[in-house]
Amino acid sequence: MAKKYVYFFGGGEADGNAQMKETLGGKGAGLAEMTRADVPVPAGFTISTDVCEYYYDHDETYPDGLEQEVQRNLDRLESMMGKTLGDPKDPLLVSVRSGAAVSMPGMMDTVLNLGLNDEAVDGLAQKSGNERFAWDSYRRFINMFGDVVMGVKHEEFEKVLERMKKNKGVENDTDLDAADLKKLVTQYKKVYKENTGAEFPQDPKDQMWKTINAVFGSWNNPRAINYRKLNDIKGLKGTAVTVMSMVFGNFGEDSGTGVCFSRDPSTGEKVFYGEYLMNAQGEDVVAGIRTPMAIKTLSDRDPKIYKQLVEVKDKLERHYQDMQDMEFTIEQGKLYLLQTRNGKRTGVAAVKIAVDMVNEGLIDKEKAMDRVTPAQLDQVFHPMIDPKAAESAKSLTKGLNASPGAATGQVVFTADEAEQWVKDGKKVLLARKETSPEDIGGMHAAEGVLTSTGGMTSHAAVVARGMGTPCVVGAKGVVISGKTMMVGEKKFKQGDFVTIDGTTGNVYEGALPLMEPKISGELRAFLEWTDDVRNKARREGLEQVGFNIRTNADTPEDAQRAREFGAEGIGLCRTEHMFFEEDRIKIFRQMIVAENKEARQKALDKLMPLQKEDFAGIFKAMDGLPVTIRLLDPPLHEFVPAEKEAIKELAESVNVSVPKLKAKIDSLHEANPMLGHRGTRLGITYPEVYNMQVEAIMTAACEVAKQGVKVYPEIMIPLVGTVNELDVMRKDAEQVAERVLEEKKMTIEYMIGTMIEIPRAALTADEVAKRADFFSFGTNDLTQMTFGYSRDDIGSFLPQYLEDGILEDDPFAVLDQEGVGQLVKMGTEKGRQTNPKLKVGICGEHGGEPRSIEFCYRVGMNYVSCSPFRVPIARLAAAKAVAHDEK
Amino acid sequence: MAKKYVYFFGGGEADGNAQMKETLGGKGAGLAEMTRADVPVPAGFTISTDVCEYYYDHDETYPDGLEQEVQRNLDRLESMMGKTLGDPKDPLLVSVRSGAAVSMPGMMDTVLNLGLNDEAVDGLAQKSGNERFAWDSYRRFINMFGDVVMGVKHEEFEKVLERMKKNKGVENDTDLDAADLKKLVTQYKKVYKENTGAEFPQDPKDQMWKTINAVFGSWNNPRAINYRKLNDIKGLKGTAVTVMSMVFGNFGEDSGTGVCFSRDPSTGEKVFYGEYLMNAQGEDVVAGIRTPMAIKTLSDRDPKIYKQLVEVKDKLERHYQDMQDMEFTIEQGKLYLLQTRNGKRTGVAAVKIAVDMVNEGLIDKEKAMDRVTPAQLDQVFHPMIDPKAAESAKSLTKGLNASPGAATGQVVFTADEAEQWVKDGKKVLLARKETSPEDIGGMHAAEGVLTSTGGMTSHAAVVARGMGTPCVVGAKGVVISGKTMMVGEKKFKQGDFVTIDGTTGNVYEGALPLMEPKISGELRAFLEWTDDVRNKARREGLEQVGFNIRTNADTPEDAQRAREFGAEGIGLCRTEHMFFEEDRIKIFRQMIVAENKEARQKALDKLMPLQKEDFAGIFKAMDGLPVTIRLLDPPLHEFVPAEKEAIKELAESVNVSVPKLKAKIDSLHEANPMLGHRGTRLGITYPEVYNMQVEAIMTAACEVAKQGVKVYPEIMIPLVGTVNELDVMRKDAEQVAERVLEEKKMTIEYMIGTMIEIPRAALTADEVAKRADFFSFGTNDLTQMTFGYSRDDIGSFLPQYLEDGILEDDPFAVLDQEGVGQLVKMGTEKGRQTNPKLKVGICGEHGGEPRSIEFCYRVGMNYVSCSPFRVPIARLAAAKAVAHDEK
Repeated sequence: MAKKYVYFFGGGEADGNAQMKETLGGKGAGLAEMTRADVPVPAGFTISTDVCEYYYDHDETYPDGLEQEVQRNLDRLESMMGKTLGDPKDPLLVSVRSGAAVSMPGMMDTVLNLGLNDEAVDGLAQKSGNERFAWDSYRRFINMFGDVVMGVKHEEFEKVLERMKKNKGVENDTDLDAADLKKLVTQYKKVYKENTGAEFPQDPKDQMWKTINAVFGSWNNPRAINYRKLNDIKGLKGTAVTVMSMVFGNFGEDSGTGVCFSRDPSTGEKVFYGEYLMNAQGEDVVAGIRTPMAIKTLSDRDPKIYKQLVEVKDKLERHYQDMQDMEFTIEQGKLYLLQTRNGKRTGVAAVKIAVDMVNEGLIDKEKAMDRVTPAQLDQVFHPMIDPKAAESAKSLTKGLNASPGAATGQVVFTADEAEQWVKDGKKVLLARKETSPEDIGGMHAAEGVLTSTGGMTSHAAVVARGMGTPCVVGAKGVVISGKTMMVGEKKFKQGDFVTIDGTTGNVYEGALPLMEPKISGELRAFLEWTDDVRNKARREGLEQVGFNIRTNADTPEDAQRAREFGAEGIGLCRTEHMFFEEDRIKIFRQMIVAENKEARQKALDKLMPLQKEDFAGIFKAMDGLPVTIRLLDPPLHEFVPAEKEAIKELAESVNVSVPKLKAKIDSLHEANPMLGHRGTRLGITYPEVYNMQVEAIMTAACEVAKQGVKVYPEIMIPLVGTVNELDVMRKDAEQVAERVLEEKKMTIEYMIGTMIEIPRAALTADEVAKRADFFSFGTNDLTQMTFGYSRDDIGSFLPQYLEDGILEDDPFAVLDQEGVGQLVKMGTEKGRQTNPKLKVGICGEHGGEPRSIEFCYRVGMNYVSCSPFRVPIARLAAAKAVAHDEK
Repeated sequence: MAKKYVYFFGGGEADGNAQMKETLGGKGAGLAEMTRADVPVPAGFTISTDVCEYYYDHDETYPDGLEQEVQRNLDRLESMMGKTLGDPKDPLLVSVRSGAAVSMPGMMDTVLNLGLNDEAVDGLAQKSGNERFAWDSYRRFINMFGDVVMGVKHEEFEKVLERMKKNKGVENDTDLDAADLKKLVTQYKKVYKENTGAEFPQDPKDQMWKTINAVFGSWNNPRAINYRKLNDIKGLKGTAVTVMSMVFGNFGEDSGTGVCFSRDPSTGEKVFYGEYLMNAQGEDVVAGIRTPMAIKTLSDRDPKIYKQLVEVKDKLERHYQDMQDMEFTIEQGKLYLLQTRNGKRTGVAAVKIAVDMVNEGLIDKEKAMDRVTPAQLDQVFHPMIDPKAAESAKSLTKGLNASPGAATGQVVFTADEAEQWVKDGKKVLLARKETSPEDIGGMHAAEGVLTSTGGMTSHAAVVARGMGTPCVVGAKGVVISGKTMMVGEKKFKQGDFVTIDGTTGNVYEGALPLMEPKISGELRAFLEWTDDVRNKARREGLEQVGFNIRTNADTPEDAQRAREFGAEGIGLCRTEHMFFEEDRIKIFRQMIVAENKEARQKALDKLMPLQKEDFAGIFKAMDGLPVTIRLLDPPLHEFVPAEKEAIKELAESVNVSVPKLKAKIDSLHEANPMLGHRGTRLGITYPEVYNMQVEAIMTAACEVAKQGVKVYPEIMIPLVGTVNELDVMRKDAEQVAERVLEEKKMTIEYMIGTMIEIPRAALTADEVAKRADFFSFGTNDLTQMTFGYSRDDIGSFLPQYLEDGILEDDPFAVLDQEGVGQLVKMGTEKGRQTNPKLKVGICGEHGGEPRSIEFCYRVGMNYVSCSPFRVPIARLAAAKAVAHDEK
């Protein structure tokens, strides 16, 4: 038996069904399924994606017998509709539409009103009783066919139309009458001939086949190829082609068209939602010339149709077990559904719908989890620009979406001003070329942060994400000088209102209205379900036990918040931020510029009790959970003062001359600080610094343990490149830790491990693991070194790399599995070869990114760690990874 | 039969031989072999390294029967010598010496004069007729035994000796008479008792066993363990212990002692060389109190002994087929050889001796190759400080030995001054904090370069090596300010004479006398033999054909010189240096600051013909050999001016305001330029720059080809991290190349490849290789990124890392096989998986380093490329790699 290529739907029967997306495309499968479900759908047939595959495999030809098969289906359609293509009395009109298994909006082509010709147009006029409608339909068809099928530029037709309107002195297309449109058809046909060298085809079957060819041809147009590449759409056979009888919503006052949702896509509430226009076509709704009506009002206007529509939407939602987005047309009092699909929705709606549907018994918890994407969940936790305001607001420029959420405030250009203004009761937005650790106070005070340089892991981006402060970085269109800022062509003074959207990277003028986030009961329930799924990794006894979500937190407050969001420990507590507080930075600077070990030790002795208090607070907040503390990492020059006054003050406090101090500060300068004297290299050259930190950690641990807190300190040595570094540092740390425990007469379990952030550490992980209790992949630095990209300097080429498709993603945002991922995998596997008990996690920014989280689970990590605000997203993403893995 | 542990030698017979180094140690095997060869050697026996191994495997005990076996050998020794240990009339005295298979100078212990006690000392006095000698020997024995065997500090004995001399008012030990020494013995025994709690042992066998224990114990003292670790000495069983009868050169005027060489170790000439002292001990020669006589004079003084010595040295040289370094003692008119070993020698001597010995039929060519180390060969090509002057000169400070050879000149502190002073006929030494591309003219003019910062691959180091200019970098003891420089405590003004030794890193005051290098006929012959061996890789049909030596050269002059040194192509021609010449830098700067593509193109059009001429010159110099040209690599800010005047001039030439130009220049600043906008990233964002370079390359190739030159251009895209970058750049380059060839109507074979210097490129080499004809490992950058070390900033921690043994070598000098090497291996293997014809080489600084060259050969590379002056070293090292591989 010959292979079936064409699938009919109509009259309550269909050859295809919802499961046949691969063969019929999303649209074709949906139409077949609706037909079977007795939903009124205009009849038609779908030519399968197998034909598309054959077409490209066989030099753009069709399989034997296809023409006959299409003809048989067309005959059936004509007989069912009681109309014939091209009939001069009552012609059948059809649309020809593309549709692959995965939606590729706007990438491929559609032709409407096919079947019209110089004779049939009269038949349509007569049958509809509307000559203008008939000639307008014909004009549109010539334009669309010319453009889509024959490659005549749309502007060529538009020019003729504009001339006509100018001559008549009218503004809108609707001001043209039937006679005008008739003239236009003549002129359009001329345009067609001039551009194609042939007459406009009058044979409807010729029209149809040319259009089918064009739709199959559009599968491999450069736009579509690029779209699939960028969206990583692979393994599809091609597009299907659906030929479907036309229905018209503009046949009169008993006709209409609309779009509706089975629940509110904005809030998720279970209400029928949508809008419609009577005597109108879909295009009119889109064009916005007339204001559509709320769907509810249809119940007054046409209770019968409304009731039918409600039944249909209930049926479809039940059928698809998801919120539906439907297009419908009413033609002369008769309802037709043209499309149904799972509706797009906001994050809030996604969570509410998923939870409601579980409660309604429509879906189970695991399915509910599939219904919310991590990106949607992210929205829920951040303020957003009111969608209505966002629609009309125009972005002045776009930077990188470094920390999600929207913020509005008066712009200030220094961190000190930010703090001052906020003290004065104002809301501010801090705009800087780039931020540095000295700006942290101001960043904390500000509603949002905007920088003109830097990438997704620049200082501003990392710190803002940690704080949950909306942030846009690397906005090249922003030029700050003194107390003013240019954004594109627009100038802003200090105090002017600006709005940023850290979710999209957009920057707006003025104070746009924001919607504040709300953590609902549904959300809590939803997240707990994800934990149930995630915890199966543990329960079902896989070799690698558990998959936890930790947080990167440097203060007790952050730790507490993260815990509320579900964090199961701290994966990265950076100790350097602690030194920037007013009372400490001076002592820390004295330590840095110390002339000798004794002077350095003196300063460290003053810092120790302060650090100890920091750690005690964090241990208390994380009672019962592990806390990984990273010893000092950044190069020392980040801490020294740059301003004259501060240098003078420091010089006095350490009793050296200003020139001598300046020389000392200069000597700390490095050509490439990212590859310089930092991390464990500081630990090796100034062991007393690390020893002080270990003493503070262990003393704090002893003190809180005495108060009944359960404490699990994990001491992390950063930037290790050889096992020897770790060996030396571990011995030092153990010595200090044992001394403290002995003095305090306590027993506390502690671990010593390392960050894996230097490629060499990953390559030699088998050696490194011999001296490590745990590995934590620092994928920010690992990405920098594996790619050779400075995260502070990529602004000059990364945007072009992304645009040209040289990179698919910003590797600082999404872990590069192909390159950096090899090192992560290798590091994990080699590490466990020599140390099977090695605990492995990630604390780079990727620890909060869903695709990266799945990767981390696959390579066998024990946990991911991310900023507090991303903990819920990580919980969801991790659960999906576990569920995916089980399938 | 029980295992044999003790090996006797004496009376023309020996249980061991030269092949038994593993078992008897180098010294024991040498003594056995000499004995068998009828060379007069004091009799004795060697306890094998198996005993040492047993000792450590069995809790520091000895195998059963060892004591008896030692006793039997001691009996045999006593009977052969006709003396008995401890005999109060005529005691046998012995030395106990350590000696492993590999020489570990000064690491383990030796005891002389063993067998003396309160009675035997009288016997010795009587028999020698020299009471002072006897008591002095006893005193020395107590000191040595106390120190070496019992751990009494040497100072304890020294204090007593000093007190005695002070009391007597004399300066030298020799001013003490027998009575004094007798008193000293009493006092020494007291010191011994005070420090050990026991009497000094009087039983000679007790003395002997205690000493044997101590020697075996010294194998695992921390000093020895560390020495073996640092020198990568592995797999040895332990040390052997040789007990040997003492002979004395201080028995009178018919006794003496000396050291001699079978050829001149300084020049390699075949003359008998050495010195001796009559009536003296080895210590006296070393102490330098009396001036030794030239060995020739012995022929007048004692023709019989001299003749015997000449016969012995001829015999030993023939026997060992190498130049011998021998210790001898004449005791009362009788000659004894105490040691013979292959003599250390200068580079010049090593080559001459190897070639002479081949010509004399003593060794074959392959063996000759083993007789010269790459380090020795390196010496030959560079001036060195006259060894006699070097002995007495005191180094003021020591930096990194960045480019070998010694240089002396008047110090200047700017490149411009260097050039000016040289024009005025002076010889200068350029001292800078660090150098930059603008300093190249001055570096070229200078005799040598000294910098206070930077590492082995800093700009100064790389450029100086390329030029063959001696260079010391990273000399932390040097502080330059204005027109003066402090070196340690010593101040230098501009114009003061300074000498540097780039081979050792030392810096000296004043103008030390230098010895200029001389390229001899022997050297040429020697290098050709190495090529014969290296070319076996090709001839014997290994899968990976050939192993070539290329050079890194940027000018026709360098290319020519490298070719004379034996380079078989250019592995790296950097194009950026070409832009620094006076006439070009201005145009290049105009290109950099161009406001738009047109202005940039205009500047490039001016540069194209200049670049073309550069390439034409290089192609001609390399007629018939491949030339790899790397497209522009460094970040653009390296080229822009920093001085006010130059900025003004540039602003005028491109017709923009100075502030605007400054802003543009500022915008090029990067936080981490090494990880910034450079290499292929420039090619992607400014394709017109690379296109210009490719056009220049291909046009030059066509032009010289028309003149009959055989040209093989290889275009190299730098800093590739993803195959997509290479893909885009390759397409551009091919387009330009094909256009040029078409215009010129020529066919020229060319290749397009990439540097592998980003870790990610190595990790994804299978993908990258699909678009590359060749890989060239840029191991400088690869090392930077794999370790996360900025080569410009490692000065702050690398010295300590090396000292503490955290790193065994500077990874910029010696390829880190364990870490970076993994990437090199992986890159090579993965690359050939998808592109079996892939040509692979290395062009980092490691391409001239012997151990790294061997590694490159092992992983299957086709060539190594190094600076011209290192080509001969690379030829030798590569030949050794091939020979080693064949074994």
